[in-house]
Amino acid sequence: MNKIKRYNSTDKVMVAVDCIIFGFDNERLKLLLIKRSFEPEIGKWSLMGGFLKKSENLDQAAARVLKNLTGLENIYLEQLYSYSKIDRDPVDRTISVAYFALISIDKYKIQISKDHDAKWFDINDYPKPIFDHSKMIKKALVRLRRKALTYPIGFELLPEKFTMKQLQDLYESIFNKEIDKRNFISKVISLNVLIKTEEKDKSTSKKGAFLYRFDENKYNENKKQGYNLSIKLK
Amino acid sequence: MNKIKRYNSTDKVMVAVDCIIFGFDNERLKLLLIKRSFEPEIGKWSLMGGFLKKSENLDQAAARVLKNLTGLENIYLEQLYSYSKIDRDPVDRTISVAYFALISIDKYKIQISKDHDAKWFDINDYPKPIFDHSKMIKKALVRLRRKALTYPIGFELLPEKFTMKQLQDLYESIFNKEIDKRNFISKVISLNVLIKTEEKDKSTSKKGAFLYRFDENKYNENKKQGYNLSIKLK
Repeated sequence: MNKIKRYNSTDKVMVAVDCIIFGFDNERLKLLLIKRSFEPEIGKWSLMGGFLKKSENLDQAAARVLKNLTGLENIYLEQLYSYSKIDRDPVDRTISVAYFALISIDKYKIQISKDHDAKWFDINDYPKPIFDHSKMIKKALVRLRRKALTYPIGFELLPEKFTMKQLQDLYESIFNKEIDKRNFISKVISLNVLIKTEEKDKSTSKKGAFLYRFDENKYNENKKQGYNLSIKLK
Repeated sequence: MNKIKRYNSTDKVMVAVDCIIFGFDNERLKLLLIKRSFEPEIGKWSLMGGFLKKSENLDQAAARVLKNLTGLENIYLEQLYSYSKIDRDPVDRTISVAYFALISIDKYKIQISKDHDAKWFDINDYPKPIFDHSKMIKKALVRLRRKALTYPIGFELLPEKFTMKQLQDLYESIFNKEIDKRNFISKVISLNVLIKTEEKDKSTSKKGAFLYRFDENKYNENKKQGYNLSIKLK
C-alpha cells in the first residue's frame, strides 16, 4: 500500500546498453571496438555503448547505438545479459545491458561514423577493453558458439553468395578450432538450408568453387525450430 | 569529455528484479505466484519481485527477494532477460531483470513467509499475472526446456532420491508432453549421471521402484560441458 516506500527514487540508477558487434570479413570473425571519447577511461578501447533514454526500450537503445556507429539499420541484435557490479562504472551506479550484433562486413558497405575511432579486431586477438567489457565479449562468444550449433546464423554474417570454404572458415573462426572438412560439408548439407548456385568463385583457384546461398524459407523455419549440428571439432 | 552530457541523471530509472520460481512436487512442475500487496494492481497475482538497491548487484537482489519469500538461501538462480517496455510499470519507468529459480519442493521445507499470500500453481494452469509477467514466465519455460535437453537440471528440482518415474514425470511436466518410457530410460541412463541405490520406493506398488540419486561429480562435469538429450516427445 505504501507506494513511497516501494518506489524510492533514490534507488534509481543509470542504465546503459553496450554492443558486442561481430562481423565476418569472409575469412575471420571480427569484433568492432571503439576508442572511448569521454572520461573516464578516455582513449581506451571499449565496446560501443550509450545510455538508455526515457523515450525508448532497451532494444531501441541498442539499435540506436549501432546505427550511430555504423549507419546500419535492421541488423541482427540480441539481448545477451545484464551486468550490475556495484562499482563497474566509477562515475555513477550504472547497470549495463549487453547486446550482440551480427554483421556481414562484405554485404554492407559499413560507414563507420567519423565521430568514432573504431577498428575491427580478430576475435582471438583484441586489446583489453575497459570496465567489464571483456566479460561481455566472452559471454557473447559462448552464446554465438551455442547458436552456431543449434540455429542457422550464417545468413547474418556471410555475403549473399558464399563458398563452402567461407562457411567452414566462419565456423572455424567462431570455434577457434579446425573442423574436419568432409564431416562439416555433409553435416551442413543435411541441414537442408543451402541452395547450390550455378556460379563459381574463381578468386582462389582456376577450377573455382561453387557458390551457395541460403534458402530463406527453410532458413527461417530452422531458425524457429532449431537443430543440432554435431560437427566434429579437432 | 563532457561528462555531464553523457551521465545525465534525468535518464535514471528504477530497476526491479522479478523471480520466476519453479518447483517440482514429485509429480508436476509448479510455479509460485504471490498476491501483490501494494498498488498498483494490489491483490492481483504476480511474480515475486523487488527493487534493486544501491548496495547490491542484480544476483544479490534476486537472492534477497527469494529469501524474503521462501526463507531459502543458496537456491539455483539464473538471470533470464531484461524487460524494458516504456509503460510496463504505470507508476514510474522501471526496467525489470527477470531471474528464474529451481526448487525441489520436497527437499526443502519451504516456509513461505506469512508476509506474502503465495501459492503454487501447475505450470500449465495458472492465473494471468500482472504487467508483462506472463511473458517472463513463458520465456523462463522456454529456457528451462532448452536446459532440460542440454544440461542436467534434476538435481535442483528432484528430492535427493527419486524413482525413474518421478524423473520422467518431471520431464513430461516441463514439456507438457508424454514421453516414450523405454526411450527415455535408455537415454537418461546413457548420460551416466545416475546412481541406482539398493533402496526401493514402495508407495505406488507392492513390487516397488528402485530409487536413484545423482552422481554429483559426473553431474557437475556434465553441467559444465552440456550434452544433447534427444528424448522422443510424443
